Amino acid sequence: MEQEQVRIAENVLPKYTLNEEQERKEILRQYRALLRSLRAKLKRGDKELVRTAFEMAADAHKTMRRKSGEPYILHPLAVARICVEEIGLGVRSTICSLLHDTVEDTDVTLEDVEREFGSEIARIVDGLTKISSVIDASSSQQADNFKKILITLTDDPRVILIKLADRLHNMRTLDYMKREKQLKIASETVWVYAPLAHRMGLYTIKTELEDLSMKYLEPEAYKDIARRLSETKRERSRYINEFIKPLREKLVAAGLDFEIYGRPKSIHSIWNKIVKKGVAFNEVYDLFAIRVILNSPPEKEKEDCWKVYSMITDENTPSPERLRDWLSNPKSNGYEALHTTVMGPQGRWVEVQIRSKRMNEIAEKGLAAHYKYKEGSNDEDRFDKWFGQIREVISNQDTDSVDFLQDFKTSFLAEEIYVYTPKGDVKMLPISSTALDFAFSIHSAVGSKCIGAKVNHKLVPISHKLRSGDQVEIITSNKQKPTEDWLNFVVTAKAKSKIKDALKEEKRKIADEGKYVLQRKLEGMGAAYSQHNIDVLTEFYKVHSQLDLFYGISIKQNDLKELKEFHVLGDKLEPPKPVKPAEVKTETETKAPVSKKDSELIIFGESSDKIMYNLAKCCNPIPGDDVFGFVTSGKGLTIHRTNCPNAAQMMANYGHRIVKTKWAKNKEISFLTGLKIVGLDDVGVINKITNVVSGDMRINISALTIESGEGLFHGTIKIFVHDKEELDELVIKLLELNGIQSVTRFDMEEIKK
Amino acid sequence: MEQEQVRIAENVLPKYTLNEEQERKEILRQYRALLRSLRAKLKRGDKELVRTAFEMAADAHKTMRRKSGEPYILHPLAVARICVEEIGLGVRSTICSLLHDTVEDTDVTLEDVEREFGSEIARIVDGLTKISSVIDASSSQQADNFKKILITLTDDPRVILIKLADRLHNMRTLDYMKREKQLKIASETVWVYAPLAHRMGLYTIKTELEDLSMKYLEPEAYKDIARRLSETKRERSRYINEFIKPLREKLVAAGLDFEIYGRPKSIHSIWNKIVKKGVAFNEVYDLFAIRVILNSPPEKEKEDCWKVYSMITDENTPSPERLRDWLSNPKSNGYEALHTTVMGPQGRWVEVQIRSKRMNEIAEKGLAAHYKYKEGSNDEDRFDKWFGQIREVISNQDTDSVDFLQDFKTSFLAEEIYVYTPKGDVKMLPISSTALDFAFSIHSAVGSKCIGAKVNHKLVPISHKLRSGDQVEIITSNKQKPTEDWLNFVVTAKAKSKIKDALKEEKRKIADEGKYVLQRKLEGMGAAYSQHNIDVLTEFYKVHSQLDLFYGISIKQNDLKELKEFHVLGDKLEPPKPVKPAEVKTETETKAPVSKKDSELIIFGESSDKIMYNLAKCCNPIPGDDVFGFVTSGKGLTIHRTNCPNAAQMMANYGHRIVKTKWAKNKEISFLTGLKIVGLDDVGVINKITNVVSGDMRINISALTIESGEGLFHGTIKIFVHDKEELDELVIKLLELNGIQSVTRFDMEEIKK
Repeated sequence: MEQEQVRIAENVLPKYTLNEEQERKEILRQYRALLRSLRAKLKRGDKELVRTAFEMAADAHKTMRRKSGEPYILHPLAVARICVEEIGLGVRSTICSLLHDTVEDTDVTLEDVEREFGSEIARIVDGLTKISSVIDASSSQQADNFKKILITLTDDPRVILIKLADRLHNMRTLDYMKREKQLKIASETVWVYAPLAHRMGLYTIKTELEDLSMKYLEPEAYKDIARRLSETKRERSRYINEFIKPLREKLVAAGLDFEIYGRPKSIHSIWNKIVKKGVAFNEVYDLFAIRVILNSPPEKEKEDCWKVYSMITDENTPSPERLRDWLSNPKSNGYEALHTTVMGPQGRWVEVQIRSKRMNEIAEKGLAAHYKYKEGSNDEDRFDKWFGQIREVISNQDTDSVDFLQDFKTSFLAEEIYVYTPKGDVKMLPISSTALDFAFSIHSAVGSKCIGAKVNHKLVPISHKLRSGDQVEIITSNKQKPTEDWLNFVVTAKAKSKIKDALKEEKRKIADEGKYVLQRKLEGMGAAYSQHNIDVLTEFYKVHSQLDLFYGISIKQNDLKELKEFHVLGDKLEPPKPVKPAEVKTETETKAPVSKKDSELIIFGESSDKIMYNLAKCCNPIPGDDVFGFVTSGKGLTIHRTNCPNAAQMMANYGHRIVKTKWAKNKEISFLTGLKIVGLDDVGVINKITNVVSGDMRINISALTIESGEGLFHGTIKIFVHDKEELDELVIKLLELNGIQSVTRFDMEEIKK
Repeated sequence: MEQEQVRIAENVLPKYTLNEEQERKEILRQYRALLRSLRAKLKRGDKELVRTAFEMAADAHKTMRRKSGEPYILHPLAVARICVEEIGLGVRSTICSLLHDTVEDTDVTLEDVEREFGSEIARIVDGLTKISSVIDASSSQQADNFKKILITLTDDPRVILIKLADRLHNMRTLDYMKREKQLKIASETVWVYAPLAHRMGLYTIKTELEDLSMKYLEPEAYKDIARRLSETKRERSRYINEFIKPLREKLVAAGLDFEIYGRPKSIHSIWNKIVKKGVAFNEVYDLFAIRVILNSPPEKEKEDCWKVYSMITDENTPSPERLRDWLSNPKSNGYEALHTTVMGPQGRWVEVQIRSKRMNEIAEKGLAAHYKYKEGSNDEDRFDKWFGQIREVISNQDTDSVDFLQDFKTSFLAEEIYVYTPKGDVKMLPISSTALDFAFSIHSAVGSKCIGAKVNHKLVPISHKLRSGDQVEIITSNKQKPTEDWLNFVVTAKAKSKIKDALKEEKRKIADEGKYVLQRKLEGMGAAYSQHNIDVLTEFYKVHSQLDLFYGISIKQNDLKELKEFHVLGDKLEPPKPVKPAEVKTETETKAPVSKKDSELIIFGESSDKIMYNLAKCCNPIPGDDVFGFVTSGKGLTIHRTNCPNAAQMMANYGHRIVKTKWAKNKEISFLTGLKIVGLDDVGVINKITNVVSGDMRINISALTIESGEGLFHGTIKIFVHDKEELDELVIKLLELNGIQSVTRFDMEEIKK
């Protein structure tokens, strides 16, 4: 599998064969193209500034080359073109894009930049520099890195936009990287950058980032869907054209100025549907999508969108469940449009997006377009609000970076719902927010005292999940205070950090009592209440801090009985010898030793040194699976599938711990894996399944469960197979049985979503 | 309570004090008003026909008076006016309305009518006559009656429309009836006629029927809501006017021809919300409703509705969950409109209905308006389709009438969903329909062989409930056949009757084998296989029919062992003596004897004879409750609350078994009843509750359960109270406790919905 991949990759990569003269010409060609795109935005003197930046960058990078062999300057040029052409940024952003790697990688200093271009540009370049300057192998490097991006982002959003352009170009040229680097970068992209692009309203860029990530993370599925899409392309085009024809005529007759066209669905979104709904490619039922773009004046655009909706639904019945009015309620990333899904000829659903030219530009260029159209509008800016919220959370410096990244994703990158206060004001909250999140979003004092809520006038518990359109009234009590379990259901970063603060404050209060108890105890023994003695006890009780020591004493976890066995020298405590820890957990004895049996199965990295490893429980890899190694503290290497549900997170947060791995050939040892089978409940179906597994294939069954009800059965089967090839063969044979609907591999420990 | 009611009713009823001359004038006044309403529809000669009908009816009813004391002819006149003014019917319907009671109650014959007005009118009058001619006390009188209405309906829909007008006038004048008659008629109205009016698209009439029914079935709740509505009327008007003002200006500016006005919500619908959501009056959150009626030409009306929607949502944010596009997908009763709910000032939701004048007329006058607009449209008629489906089901004469009524309600009066075939054709089905209902709706052969379905390409069991917009593909197998349990989840009358047919057919096949076994057995004994001998055995085995006998033999339930003890005289069987039944069920022994303890508590009807009775388990009436007696076979009388969940069904189906009952004063004996309590979980809350119940009120607690979780608790408490007054006092005291959210009485055996 790996070999084939590499072969395909090699076929695709062009050999780099330009000579110096050709290189010079190519660089100039790119530079001129950039200027052409920028032309409309150039004011007096701008052209010269861009030229200076280009020359500064070209000179600084002149000896450097990219992995592909190209001159390095082509990268900043490409990033600048993306910024201008795909995000709609202007002259200043172009200059920053050209310079974005200079301070980091070359002799150019920030002072040089400031002297030449002024403080505004220097600040942005500084932001871009800070982001990539932390490359040491700390445990949560990427998360830290990302936190820095966000701090800078809130100063100037252009930093994040240029960073996204930079990432997009790197993803487009990822073929030249080594496999483990590809996995790491692609994971990071799908985990953080694509959601961020989505949040910034850059739908086109988000889609491309997702598709490119999938190409590296799920190469087989990617190629499979791409092939099927290209096979059905002609047929789909014909269908869409037929569907569009009568509509176009009606729209023309109504005197509307518009464009209408078929819109391809992204590979990543199709794949998502296949995985989520558990259906096959040809059963993804909304492969057909069209878009209508109206060139209407601002005061007519909303009305015209509804006019088109009315005309389309005259011809085709719409599905009531799938009407989305983002005209009246724009998304918080600024997205406005009208979506509906209608029944087309031959019983096929067709997704229809209707929007004005302005809305379309916002959908494609996001933030930048939004700022452009904002001028003159007195609409409260959604992005500014969002930046404000991020700033508030970031200012709380206590949280661990990895936690922070997770919180950030659920708080700021998730889809949003909007709910109403009792007075009818709107609040935006991330999806899955609870009544308690709402309470904290009003004020931390309201959150801390929240004992329940009325949602649409009905009493609900604080953990109640809110839905768009809910009207929420918070009920408080002065007796209430935050508890540990609140952290289990709130989703907003603000609520989380405020609850943690309150818990810490509470702990501190309790610890104060413990401190007082200890003080008296030590006095009673004739020992001093000194830092030395506190440190002795902290170590003796194996607690992390003096706060934990006091707290433990207060809640009687550390009961100070052992103090009797201490000696007091002068006013100093001396622990009894030999040091016998107060509590020894015997947990380690019950831990299974790392399996070493099959260690000969894997060759690590480029060498074939044998090291201790084990197979991840979350995805149960078997030979033939595309895998990677993850360095764990103390347990050696854990082998995960590249499509393990935890992979993206691990790679994004701990990319430096990823090790490339490969399977060695070995047909002697078998591995436990599992299949889920769903089908029609029929007499003898279990017998048929076991016949295939044990009879035909001679595969060892470890466990089998079948539950049936109302004509369907759901089965799980745990089996020992030698490799992926054998498993694939079994799946095909099972699917050939009459009445079997689906057979899917399952991970033994299914993680919670 | 009862007394107060009667007093109020007496206050309302005008004393009938007209002399003969005044009566004559009033009759003429009504007749002239009828002619005025009809004027636009009168063709040459029509006026004379109406006059003849009026004179025929007036003469026939001349000696008769209504319960109110009025001359009877005022009733047919009123019915005719409702038909013309509120339903939009024409001359022929007017004549039928005037004559609707003549053939039934007077000397006028159907031949007289036919001779005078022709066969069309005679047929409709015959239909109206048939309906009310079955007044004997058969067990399912109303259901039978109703089945007849439907049979006639499918001949000519005017029959049902006139019947609805007749019912509406009777409901408007129900005050003059006795209480038990009021209960019976009101129940029947809310159970059958209001849903029927809804189904015919007569929204205004449906609402009035519901409100009037509620006035008699739930007098206290009705008066309470009416009072609160009138108290808040001024404030609501002000709010609505304020809300409408800017909209009106915008709509005028846009050059639209329209009406906009506040729309009162019906008492019944408010009450429904209070009961269903368990909230208080002032927490029913959409008391505010407006309507926009557009006077747009047919080709612009849909577009204009959306234009208005767009304008309203520019001002007020809509709730995405509550947008209903019945413009693209009209309801199967023909209703078209656009509904949305938007956030108004002060955080109040306002429901907005937008429709054209034509749509509005359909919403108010239903079927008749629909037929009027249908002319010239090539739209397939939804009503004709519906009538066709009813005809198909009615043609199956086997079903028991009460079953039929229930089936009819769920099949034809319920809200509908629409689903798609794989080819994209639309099918309308009643709400809660399953994949199996869909299969039967295609063809009974598809239903019988259905083993599963794919809904939106996902495999589901046959019992899967469908939702609007689903696309359904049926999977069949030749091995499949219907089973008894299918009847538990199908909802359509068609599926039910086809399944029953198939089961019967299956039973017949099995019985055939039993018949053969019996034949040989009789031959072996020297007895004939004769009708006489079959009857002897049918009686001996206590089975209902010869089919059951054969079937029992085939499945070995009747194992024919006892035949040995039979004598054979000639070729005739003679049963052994004494006849000992093959199977005697001892079920009767386990039945609890009817409680007689508290029989002195009730006075029945007008007399005070004491008869055996018991209190219904479904609603647990206590003294003070508004109650009625229901004659059960063998168990004497069962006492139900008039708002018992089963009451409407019992009264509608078995009205003749209802007996008026009243409580006698008695403070000695206490009755078991239950309360549900919901509130905020707080320290000491249980203690507070029991303090009130046992301490303050000295009420005996029979059982108490409290479950709490996530800050809320749910409690049930079973207590012995003397009467409703005591219970009401307890509820008020409990509600006064801090943190108690709701206290509601519950019925011990909560029935399934």
